Amino acid sequence: MAVQRVLIDGQWTVSAGTSTFHAVNPRTTEPLPETYPVSPWSEVVQVLEAANRAAETVRSWSGDRFAAFLEKFADRIEARAADLVAIANLETALPVAPRLKDVELPRTTNQLRQAAKAARDGSWAMPTIDTASNIRSVLGPIGPVAVFGPNNFPFAFNGAAGGDFAAAVAAGNPVIAKGHSSHPGTTRLFAEEAQLAATETGMPNGFVQLIYRTSHDDGKRLAAHPLLGAIGYTGSRSAGVQLKEAADRVGKPIYLELSSINPVYLLPGAIRERAAAIVDQFATSCLMGTGQMCTSPGLIVVQAAPEVENFIKQATEKFAAAPVGTLLGAGVVSHLESGQKTVVASGATVLTGAATGGGAGFSCQNTLLRVSARQFLAAAEALQTEMFGNSSLIVVADSTDELVAVARSLEGNLTGCLYTATDGSDDALHDRIAPILRQKVGRLLNDKMPTGVAVVASMNHGGPFPATGHPGFTAVGIPGAVRRFGMLQCYDAVRPNRLPAALANKNPNGSLWRSIDGQMTQGDVIA
Amino acid sequence: MAVQRVLIDGQWTVSAGTSTFHAVNPRTTEPLPETYPVSPWSEVVQVLEAANRAAETVRSWSGDRFAAFLEKFADRIEARAADLVAIANLETALPVAPRLKDVELPRTTNQLRQAAKAARDGSWAMPTIDTASNIRSVLGPIGPVAVFGPNNFPFAFNGAAGGDFAAAVAAGNPVIAKGHSSHPGTTRLFAEEAQLAATETGMPNGFVQLIYRTSHDDGKRLAAHPLLGAIGYTGSRSAGVQLKEAADRVGKPIYLELSSINPVYLLPGAIRERAAAIVDQFATSCLMGTGQMCTSPGLIVVQAAPEVENFIKQATEKFAAAPVGTLLGAGVVSHLESGQKTVVASGATVLTGAATGGGAGFSCQNTLLRVSARQFLAAAEALQTEMFGNSSLIVVADSTDELVAVARSLEGNLTGCLYTATDGSDDALHDRIAPILRQKVGRLLNDKMPTGVAVVASMNHGGPFPATGHPGFTAVGIPGAVRRFGMLQCYDAVRPNRLPAALANKNPNGSLWRSIDGQMTQGDVIA
Repeated sequence: MAVQRVLIDGQWTVSAGTSTFHAVNPRTTEPLPETYPVSPWSEVVQVLEAANRAAETVRSWSGDRFAAFLEKFADRIEARAADLVAIANLETALPVAPRLKDVELPRTTNQLRQAAKAARDGSWAMPTIDTASNIRSVLGPIGPVAVFGPNNFPFAFNGAAGGDFAAAVAAGNPVIAKGHSSHPGTTRLFAEEAQLAATETGMPNGFVQLIYRTSHDDGKRLAAHPLLGAIGYTGSRSAGVQLKEAADRVGKPIYLELSSINPVYLLPGAIRERAAAIVDQFATSCLMGTGQMCTSPGLIVVQAAPEVENFIKQATEKFAAAPVGTLLGAGVVSHLESGQKTVVASGATVLTGAATGGGAGFSCQNTLLRVSARQFLAAAEALQTEMFGNSSLIVVADSTDELVAVARSLEGNLTGCLYTATDGSDDALHDRIAPILRQKVGRLLNDKMPTGVAVVASMNHGGPFPATGHPGFTAVGIPGAVRRFGMLQCYDAVRPNRLPAALANKNPNGSLWRSIDGQMTQGDVIA
Repeated sequence: MAVQRVLIDGQWTVSAGTSTFHAVNPRTTEPLPETYPVSPWSEVVQVLEAANRAAETVRSWSGDRFAAFLEKFADRIEARAADLVAIANLETALPVAPRLKDVELPRTTNQLRQAAKAARDGSWAMPTIDTASNIRSVLGPIGPVAVFGPNNFPFAFNGAAGGDFAAAVAAGNPVIAKGHSSHPGTTRLFAEEAQLAATETGMPNGFVQLIYRTSHDDGKRLAAHPLLGAIGYTGSRSAGVQLKEAADRVGKPIYLELSSINPVYLLPGAIRERAAAIVDQFATSCLMGTGQMCTSPGLIVVQAAPEVENFIKQATEKFAAAPVGTLLGAGVVSHLESGQKTVVASGATVLTGAATGGGAGFSCQNTLLRVSARQFLAAAEALQTEMFGNSSLIVVADSTDELVAVARSLEGNLTGCLYTATDGSDDALHDRIAPILRQKVGRLLNDKMPTGVAVVASMNHGGPFPATGHPGFTAVGIPGAVRRFGMLQCYDAVRPNRLPAALANKNPNGSLWRSIDGQMTQGDVIA
């Protein structure tokens, strides 16, 4: 079978690459038939140059045009939903329904449409005007954005259709999609629809491009290239920190989502009050998508008590009895096993699982591990090793001081939860732990598990390193996610006819929010 | 004379350091009498721990309290203005009037008061609420901020009183000031007043601390320390990139201002129309503060023409005839000479200057260099070497294509200017160059020189690397500068009594701007 083509400068092109790869069906562990190319550096340069030309073409375009593209793309995705769901299911083994068809695909088109709305409105760019000095500023497009999608969300985080893609486009930037090697076919279908939508809505060639894979070194060269504006990366910590280092060295903005174990504190009163309900919520959250969620609860922290022993027993039984899902690939299995080994070697004991198999294809038994807080504190770094998949570690503290000390020892995470009793009996303890946890996580939850990332403006899907590369940004939630792909552009005494529309005296659409002389307003500048 | 004390945890303390240094009077090139300590690592750790305790104490405080401190501090600075101006003049040789007394000191207290206003108002933190999901987010304090001030603005960028200090405090963070070694006495006076203001307004010990110097290695360890929230650095590129590398490796936000040559395009019609006026503006801007401005025009780009030769002749005469100012220190002299040597070695010719001396103490003749665009393009990196001080390079292009090519070859800068004719004769050429220059600079100017950074909300004192570390942020301009020192904190189903005031249903001060369900409003959440 012929090698699949890459999308460069508006054309589906035979790759110059000589090496190739196949995706693997996780259910059968057998390679899928299609062959995909590894792009050589010369091809990456072609892509960068085309993206740069596209960026120069669209730089002064109004948000309406990017909105039209995003909306057309969302429509086209919906029209091709059946194909997308089928190939994503084949490549990832994620369930067709409800996951792919009823949850992730609608979320993806919803993100594209929210991004379109933000692009049309323009307020995301925070236009600011000082009339006395005639200095005006706005977030303008940062330049071509390379989006590296992860393995675990073939739709919603896809390099050619997901949240970073939508945000980069809404900010007015071309996207270079780097497909994840585990689902190249899914990414190809998205790129096909994106290119058609781009043509239909008059976007220039090179506005959306797709390459499937490069060497690691070429990935780093891409991340540091002068023609690139920024990078969005969701994936493993090891690959991400290498890209980050390359980008940081040349001051290139890189937005990463790397790893998170998502600590959940179950305070004594909550366990006394509703242990059975919490067991259900915990198991459901941790085993959802076979635990392959960025916000999967990977660390449960409790204080020793008879009812906690009962809670652990119930959770263990639930994990042992639950069906074992298929993992995304051989790499996920080996990474999970390696994480479990590290955690066990650092003093944790296995309550259930921690062995390969148990499900169809790539799989690992549902796993619960246990460790004392004392031991956790003695090897805090190793015991925070991410076990991406259907696995979680329960930390049992002997005292409230140990609960607090565990919180202090945590690395940065996307989320942190506190379950407390409704009768107020946990409140004093909550008030000792919450301020510490607050500084360690992007999203703090009460009385609920962290999975389920609502796509709303107030979402923070981010957090301190190593969860991401910077605690000020979110990858999910518009307009926040869009702002990552803007650069601050100030106009000092620039002649009125040369100003972008957002900074003209007249409000361009009558609804744009601007700060004019320190006042938020949708009005015009009074000249 | 006894070694000056460091300010740690609310106390002026004898440093544990065994090595010391002196500031130098730039006018006499002789050391000043006061002795200052180099703090050892153990002392840096003490400072970090005290800052962390202070951060925990103030974390939930309302903006009013930080505002009260900032305003009291501004008042105290004004009451001690004479001492501050005298010591800064001694340590930097910057003129008492108008520079220090009438411009920089009022700017500094103005920044503190603008920061206070932002802290009291709270809108800088962009509170965002989605009622349907009950998810709420706001920028919260990022943690203790280390501020490294530069040599060239002893007041407005001082680590213990300048823009980064004001912004970090407005966001609710303690500051660890790292005084610049060229003006430790100035920094000490600020820290004295800051500590008194802190005591008077009930801030905890450790909210403001001062150390004068550390080893380079300890500076890097400080920048990467887990107890530190973020770093603000203004200074040399070589030291800055080392701090950046240390901070980046652990995902610690670091905001840098490193270097900028501030390209100025003088298009043909503008030169024909008003050469004499432009010569005046150029010389004034470039020689202001002996050229020791972050936004000094260090690169002038023109197209060959007889009137351009005349412009260059006039500018050369002006530079040669102007008084030669004193530079800030021996390091500035050697750095400037080294930059000039690099530029000359890469093909530039000396129009005037390029020799040590000519002024009182540390000085270098006012210098103009010239190079062809062809040569510039052949050695673009070397010919963009910053010559910090009273020195500038004129690039003469043979064609409009070369003017465009020079723009494409530029690194990131704080500013970029275009002078064009008023009759429209430069407009076509402007429209070729401006979009390229736009992406390379933080602030784009028309028909004016880049020095003079207005402290207004719309200012961008930032730009792509190597001007700064990230093109999305400004160091000057409130509220933008404040947001750098916030982390995005999301609350998901958190109980109402545990929410920060900015996210409560009721608008805490009736004037806070919030985004509620996608609408900007100063109202309450309708429960």
